[in-house]
Amino acid sequence: MSLKLTILGCHSATPRSDAHPTSQVLEIKNGCYLIDCGEGTQKQLRKFQFKFSKIENIFISHLHGDHFFGLIGLISTFSLLKRQNDLHIFAPKGAKEIIDLQLKITKSYLHYNLIIHELETKSSTLIFEDKNVSVHTIPLKHRIYTNGFLFIEKRGERKLNIEAIKQFPDIDICDYQNLKNGRDFTRDDGSIVDNSILTFDPKKTFTYAYCSDTAFTESIIPIIKHVDLLYHESTFLEKHSDLAQLTKHSTALEAAKIAKMAQVKKLLLGHYSSRYKDLNAFKIEASKIFNNVELSYEGASFYLND
Amino acid sequence: MSLKLTILGCHSATPRSDAHPTSQVLEIKNGCYLIDCGEGTQKQLRKFQFKFSKIENIFISHLHGDHFFGLIGLISTFSLLKRQNDLHIFAPKGAKEIIDLQLKITKSYLHYNLIIHELETKSSTLIFEDKNVSVHTIPLKHRIYTNGFLFIEKRGERKLNIEAIKQFPDIDICDYQNLKNGRDFTRDDGSIVDNSILTFDPKKTFTYAYCSDTAFTESIIPIIKHVDLLYHESTFLEKHSDLAQLTKHSTALEAAKIAKMAQVKKLLLGHYSSRYKDLNAFKIEASKIFNNVELSYEGASFYLND
Repeated sequence: MSLKLTILGCHSATPRSDAHPTSQVLEIKNGCYLIDCGEGTQKQLRKFQFKFSKIENIFISHLHGDHFFGLIGLISTFSLLKRQNDLHIFAPKGAKEIIDLQLKITKSYLHYNLIIHELETKSSTLIFEDKNVSVHTIPLKHRIYTNGFLFIEKRGERKLNIEAIKQFPDIDICDYQNLKNGRDFTRDDGSIVDNSILTFDPKKTFTYAYCSDTAFTESIIPIIKHVDLLYHESTFLEKHSDLAQLTKHSTALEAAKIAKMAQVKKLLLGHYSSRYKDLNAFKIEASKIFNNVELSYEGASFYLND
Repeated sequence: MSLKLTILGCHSATPRSDAHPTSQVLEIKNGCYLIDCGEGTQKQLRKFQFKFSKIENIFISHLHGDHFFGLIGLISTFSLLKRQNDLHIFAPKGAKEIIDLQLKITKSYLHYNLIIHELETKSSTLIFEDKNVSVHTIPLKHRIYTNGFLFIEKRGERKLNIEAIKQFPDIDICDYQNLKNGRDFTRDDGSIVDNSILTFDPKKTFTYAYCSDTAFTESIIPIIKHVDLLYHESTFLEKHSDLAQLTKHSTALEAAKIAKMAQVKKLLLGHYSSRYKDLNAFKIEASKIFNNVELSYEGASFYLND
């Protein structure tokens, strides 16, 4: 597995007894990244058996309740469970004030370091980087300050070509890490063996763009161009395009237009308004102009790998 | 039906995929009162088909997350659904600051009046009254300021004794309301007919005491004496009484002791720690010293009527 996206919730704000608001877990190698945290996210994490301590970074798109009202509960639970490792939250300005006040008034003393990185930039910015991934904001167009997130998987190490290495008896096992890192090998006689002879290219890497909530906006095209997977909100169908405009959300057709213009590999729809019973209508509408569309649903996992 | 209590959630803070934290709906005549509001309460209200607009008064025992992290979501949803009627919240001091800040930062403008009554009193106090019920606080002993709530159903109107009324042709239909209100009837000749001849006693009324979260404390006995139904938290079993003491919670046995000392009619247990799989052990433990014990569980309804 290279990249795995699991949907914890994909409905919009109006509550239903059988659906949760937005939250997703993105797994890249051994990293586990939580994207948005609507009410009930901690329960969904339990249901789909994610280990709480593996979540070290949470990315919040905006401060509407269906994307962040589950956050304070998750933060509190982490403490209740005696979490030790740091937790980083990337969220719009204001999140820290809300969380700090709730912790103060509820007399909650966290057993771990909580680091809240408040976002204010209006252009796409690198906000996070570890050995697996770099994350850039995607400025979106919504009723309040909102960012999508572009996850770019990092290239892994080169893979050793053991058969080729065997031809060079002076290559020791101690040299393997240098080879994996792409270095050429200098033989005992001073001659150089090109790294490409001794290793294979690393595994292909993938990109994921999360865009929710947003009105239709072409401004995101250059940022998400050619991504392998695009999650683009589709709160409404075209028959309610007036509501989409009014509330600064998108229709399934608009999501497909963005997918087509950005030439992405696959489009994933979600953030459905609770007024719709037949979600297949979203796929039908988007498929009219883009041919690789999938519907998100709770518990669904989407894989990107070779 | 005179009084109906429905359990929306009855587990303590540590989340489970199959259980919700504390919330209950108490229905008395046409009144619908929400008690505590843990994360996911709005989803549970949908599941058990309570009409959102019927909830006009919410009572919050304390500001630990498993009793109030669902409140801001519910407040927001009410607005999203274009609620018109006022909403009153009775909660410890601090609740208003948290809610106001979240509404401000999320740029949420409510379509209805939200009135937050902050509680600070340390002795039992009448905090609410309408035509169905009066509500008094029950000061509890927990890690932060906490109140239980005593609901005292109000006596209804007297019932007309139509057979008896027929004996007095000068009683007009216009007089019926006065009779229901308990007034004697003055005949045309000036003689007086005692109300008790013309009416029956109103229906029996009931009392409900909600006590969560709390350590064992005898101070509540005088307040809850003889109630028809007592919900008393039982986070732990006696084998974990050290944890109960440490965290200022109660064991099932302690809940039963309170029930016995207060001579209540029925004891309802709840707020179970997630560490226990077999909840029947709570009933067995409490039943050792009190003989009318029931376990709360999600979706259960308990009725008090003649």
